[in-house]
Amino acid sequence: MSIEQLAVNTIKALAMDGVQRANSGHPGMPMGMADIATVLWSKHLRVDPTMPDWPDRDRFVLSNGHGSMLLYSLLHLTGFGLTIEDLMSFRRLGSKTPGHPERDPALGIEMTTGPLGQGFATGVGMALAEANLRSSFGSELVDHMTYAFLGDGDLMEGISSEAASFAGRLGLGRLVYLYDDNEISIGGSTDISFTEDVPARFVAHGWHVLDIDGHDRHAIDEAITLARSDERPSLIVCHTHIAHGAPTLHDTSKSHGSPLGEQEVAATKEGMGFPTDQMFHVPDGVYEFFADAMASGTDARVAWERRLSDAVEIDPGLAPRWSDRFGSVDAEVGPLGYEAGESVATRKASERAINLLAAEVPGLVGGSADLEPSTNTFIAGAAEMQDDIGGRNIRFGVREHAMGAIVNGLTVHGGFRAYGATFLVFNDYMRASTRLAALMGAPSIFVYTHDSVFLGEDGPTHQPIEQVASLRAMPNMWVVRPADATETAEAWEMALRRDDGPTAIVLTRQGIPVLDRSKHHGEVHRGGYVLRSGDDAVLIATGSEVHVAMEAAELLAEAGTSLRVVSMPCVEAFDAQDETYRSAVLGQLPVATLEAGVTMGWHRFTGSDGLAMGIDHFGASAPWKQLADHWGFTGPAVRDRIQEWLGGSAT
Amino acid sequence: MSIEQLAVNTIKALAMDGVQRANSGHPGMPMGMADIATVLWSKHLRVDPTMPDWPDRDRFVLSNGHGSMLLYSLLHLTGFGLTIEDLMSFRRLGSKTPGHPERDPALGIEMTTGPLGQGFATGVGMALAEANLRSSFGSELVDHMTYAFLGDGDLMEGISSEAASFAGRLGLGRLVYLYDDNEISIGGSTDISFTEDVPARFVAHGWHVLDIDGHDRHAIDEAITLARSDERPSLIVCHTHIAHGAPTLHDTSKSHGSPLGEQEVAATKEGMGFPTDQMFHVPDGVYEFFADAMASGTDARVAWERRLSDAVEIDPGLAPRWSDRFGSVDAEVGPLGYEAGESVATRKASERAINLLAAEVPGLVGGSADLEPSTNTFIAGAAEMQDDIGGRNIRFGVREHAMGAIVNGLTVHGGFRAYGATFLVFNDYMRASTRLAALMGAPSIFVYTHDSVFLGEDGPTHQPIEQVASLRAMPNMWVVRPADATETAEAWEMALRRDDGPTAIVLTRQGIPVLDRSKHHGEVHRGGYVLRSGDDAVLIATGSEVHVAMEAAELLAEAGTSLRVVSMPCVEAFDAQDETYRSAVLGQLPVATLEAGVTMGWHRFTGSDGLAMGIDHFGASAPWKQLADHWGFTGPAVRDRIQEWLGGSAT
Repeated sequence: MSIEQLAVNTIKALAMDGVQRANSGHPGMPMGMADIATVLWSKHLRVDPTMPDWPDRDRFVLSNGHGSMLLYSLLHLTGFGLTIEDLMSFRRLGSKTPGHPERDPALGIEMTTGPLGQGFATGVGMALAEANLRSSFGSELVDHMTYAFLGDGDLMEGISSEAASFAGRLGLGRLVYLYDDNEISIGGSTDISFTEDVPARFVAHGWHVLDIDGHDRHAIDEAITLARSDERPSLIVCHTHIAHGAPTLHDTSKSHGSPLGEQEVAATKEGMGFPTDQMFHVPDGVYEFFADAMASGTDARVAWERRLSDAVEIDPGLAPRWSDRFGSVDAEVGPLGYEAGESVATRKASERAINLLAAEVPGLVGGSADLEPSTNTFIAGAAEMQDDIGGRNIRFGVREHAMGAIVNGLTVHGGFRAYGATFLVFNDYMRASTRLAALMGAPSIFVYTHDSVFLGEDGPTHQPIEQVASLRAMPNMWVVRPADATETAEAWEMALRRDDGPTAIVLTRQGIPVLDRSKHHGEVHRGGYVLRSGDDAVLIATGSEVHVAMEAAELLAEAGTSLRVVSMPCVEAFDAQDETYRSAVLGQLPVATLEAGVTMGWHRFTGSDGLAMGIDHFGASAPWKQLADHWGFTGPAVRDRIQEWLGGSAT
Repeated sequence: MSIEQLAVNTIKALAMDGVQRANSGHPGMPMGMADIATVLWSKHLRVDPTMPDWPDRDRFVLSNGHGSMLLYSLLHLTGFGLTIEDLMSFRRLGSKTPGHPERDPALGIEMTTGPLGQGFATGVGMALAEANLRSSFGSELVDHMTYAFLGDGDLMEGISSEAASFAGRLGLGRLVYLYDDNEISIGGSTDISFTEDVPARFVAHGWHVLDIDGHDRHAIDEAITLARSDERPSLIVCHTHIAHGAPTLHDTSKSHGSPLGEQEVAATKEGMGFPTDQMFHVPDGVYEFFADAMASGTDARVAWERRLSDAVEIDPGLAPRWSDRFGSVDAEVGPLGYEAGESVATRKASERAINLLAAEVPGLVGGSADLEPSTNTFIAGAAEMQDDIGGRNIRFGVREHAMGAIVNGLTVHGGFRAYGATFLVFNDYMRASTRLAALMGAPSIFVYTHDSVFLGEDGPTHQPIEQVASLRAMPNMWVVRPADATETAEAWEMALRRDDGPTAIVLTRQGIPVLDRSKHHGEVHRGGYVLRSGDDAVLIATGSEVHVAMEAAELLAEAGTSLRVVSMPCVEAFDAQDETYRSAVLGQLPVATLEAGVTMGWHRFTGSDGLAMGIDHFGASAPWKQLADHWGFTGPAVRDRIQEWLGGSAT
């Protein structure tokens, strides 16, 4: 038996054993893709286990993340930081080998996968990152591939069509995707639901498509070689057998998501000439086989470092340019130049902030999902990537879901602080990718404009009601809804300083006054702060409603009630403050809240006796001031409600 | 000028005037599609303004819903219930003509559109409804088309790829979609982001594709005729000019989403031979032109009614079979047959409920997004629609977003109580379509299994944390998370009885005990009820956590604390009860809550002094009982926390 075949068999055996021991998992995919994985990892993938986060490494994404034992087996055999004990702890609490891969660059895991299609689309972002950096720094320093493994589920998800169309438009030739076409899905044959002509679809998307026997390692090698050199993104359709080598369960959906059973495992091992009484067995020569391949990765990394230091010697400016991209960001926006009292939509203030920051943060790139004239996220004077791949503006098209994933791909690749923008209500279209950013701890930035019913005439389909609450419900997502231009600038600073999770910046369509900061200093980074002092009650407000709150406070003062107004642009940041600060802001006063969205979540502040003012129903199509009158988002209406409440709670 | 040309011009003028008067809206699309609309509505669309909800009418969907003035103009000119005054009230508060079309079958508006791609995918559900009903009732009674207008945005959204692939698999030949290929998107030329080969993509999806000049009315007529007779779903790519007829703004993105301006409107009218000093002008003959076309719709409806009564005469059983499909549903599941104390996953109980209900509710159809063996939503003994279009089981494929829309399409079509199932966490993939069901008031049923971290080993990518809260945040969405098999049966009854909005049924993967209903009667329809009495404090729990709460209450009783346990499967239903009932359930006691998800939303019940127990962080991969121990979702751990809380609040 060739050493290559032995390596393939070892992967199959490790995957079977890991799943069998955990009594849970997906053995079929690792066995079906073991040939492909062995060829890719031994002959093509350029990574260095001695420096897993080397910036110019090839990226490998397991988009069909349920086959995680394949990745864990590879990382173990190639000398990344996974031991046999780690493989034995598959799917155990606290292990390095959870059910689906979780991003850990130090371990060689580029991203979290499992939710189908995300790996496909995030890989597109990684390839875009490479192409953009190569354009800036040259192919001596940036020259790597992005590989992904895909299953039929990835291709059925709409996000993969969005991302494929985008990759075709941008001509991301360094993408090589290997599709495990085993014709089996959870429900049985893929034919029951999936009969489209996948190669023709990808050709329509502008891709280079190859079609091979996924167990013919010579053909795999040739196809990858061809794909690497093609200028288009490549899809290699690999005809495979799920659970390849399992005598009775191959080609069945049973092998997809359940252990094969001890008997089948033993029979498979016997067929491969493996000892049936040993689990997690690695035959002689297999480690060495992969070590040889990895040694060439280490050589490549050393050579790259030499090229980098040579280049820095010739051009000393390169060093700071490089570290500006790959270091942390601590930019300040500086004054936006608005006058107090001026009416400025926060989306407009955001545009000014982006353009000021762009000069400081070279990695700042982004764009919108075909709402550019409305989201105001264009970096003036910079090219658009579809015209010049080294540009800074991205035209995502009407593809919010892929946009979220591509932003994540740019972000986890390194070298970028990327943002994607759309209307807040369309967060619903991209929620799965924003969640993945939160779960991976990726500091992606999502810009959501048209943040309330006050977008007006477009009506309830476009008016967010529950979206701010839904975003706040997501662990590790920071949601900032600034109340004026100054808070908007600070929101951007906060987002850029975050390094362990995403930020959603939530902005108005309509103009709102710039607050006089000689009177009230903005403290967005503390999440909430006292904007107007008062000692009868507190009114917490966010975004455009802060101005309504201020007007109500003014009116209440005339009536002898002293209302404290707290601007709370970021609940998560406020929660992160110490008890002393929080108590000082809220005092021991009765609490009311005001936000043009569902009241859900605010009762934590108001308690049972408090007053949560919001909109717990869908919106309506009308000019925004009319809606504000209609639903009582005016100073007088809020004054009345607060008077009624305080009167009531006093009795 | 031909009367047909005059009709086209009238539509253009009405659309321009509506947008101009509202000073907001999208004139470009209605003008670009006026030729297409005129041909479709005058020569092909079989509808009857005198009976807009005639079941066998053709369905028309404006997927590019921003062009709403096109639909409103057509509905006015053809004699549906929209007056000129309604057109003049475009985008005004309370008008019948909001910014985007809102579902109103009495007015001829089949569905709410605006969020792109939803109309495309929902139309697929309508066509599936027609094909299924035709199989059951024969083409004498069911024989209609589903037409939709699309823009490039619809085609960029991933949901359209999902739905196209599904429609191709099912061979839904009565679908005729007209694509407004005007090469302009909001950002400018579509080339900046959208260069894929659309015809080739749809051929790959199994569609029949035609390519025409969208201003050549003869070609439009011929293409629709060809498309109607083809057995595949048809896409007619119509090359058009946005704002066709506007002398300076045609073919520009400026005309997409803003009024053309008085000068341009006047110039356009002048070019068409329309009076420039009149708004909302309908020339002589135009009403009559459309009235002729509608008269043939009325004739068709009358002929259909005759066929129905003839058929009922021959087969008296037909009448109840028909009314069972198109009437309201008041089914009872009956006993599921489990023993008290037996361990049953609620997804399993749901399977039994579905299968019992299937016999009572012939319109009950559904399926899952390739998770059938896990969601347990198969109707035993019924065919699968891809094998027999008259079947009851749908294989949606890994296409959650399209699944949501297709379920909505079946639902708003009439004749069905449709459900779609996936893991709860993947609601994130289909949130936009579930929201549309809520906004339209469509009683779609969404079955979400694997409803908490207690799905175990699959880990955080698959473990819902914020999903239940996010669903509850959505207006008009009812969320039912039953605590045992009996509550599950009642959840299904509730969902089927709803007629004004969707229900999400949220189910466990793991087995949980069947409660002894001789002791505690389930009252799911009241949303929450006392499961165990007690007078020191109340613990509200949902789903699997109800059993943890009961165990904690048992343990606390031993320590002398009397804990009332309230099962609250549906917060929305509880909120809908009267104050007396709610007070009786909650008493004036201190309130704690227990749910394996974010605590957000529960503070409304606990107030400031209460105790909200939940999981405010992402999950982890491990066997579920280990996770329950780890995060304190056990009787003893909850007892301890309650003791600490009551001790603390007592001091």
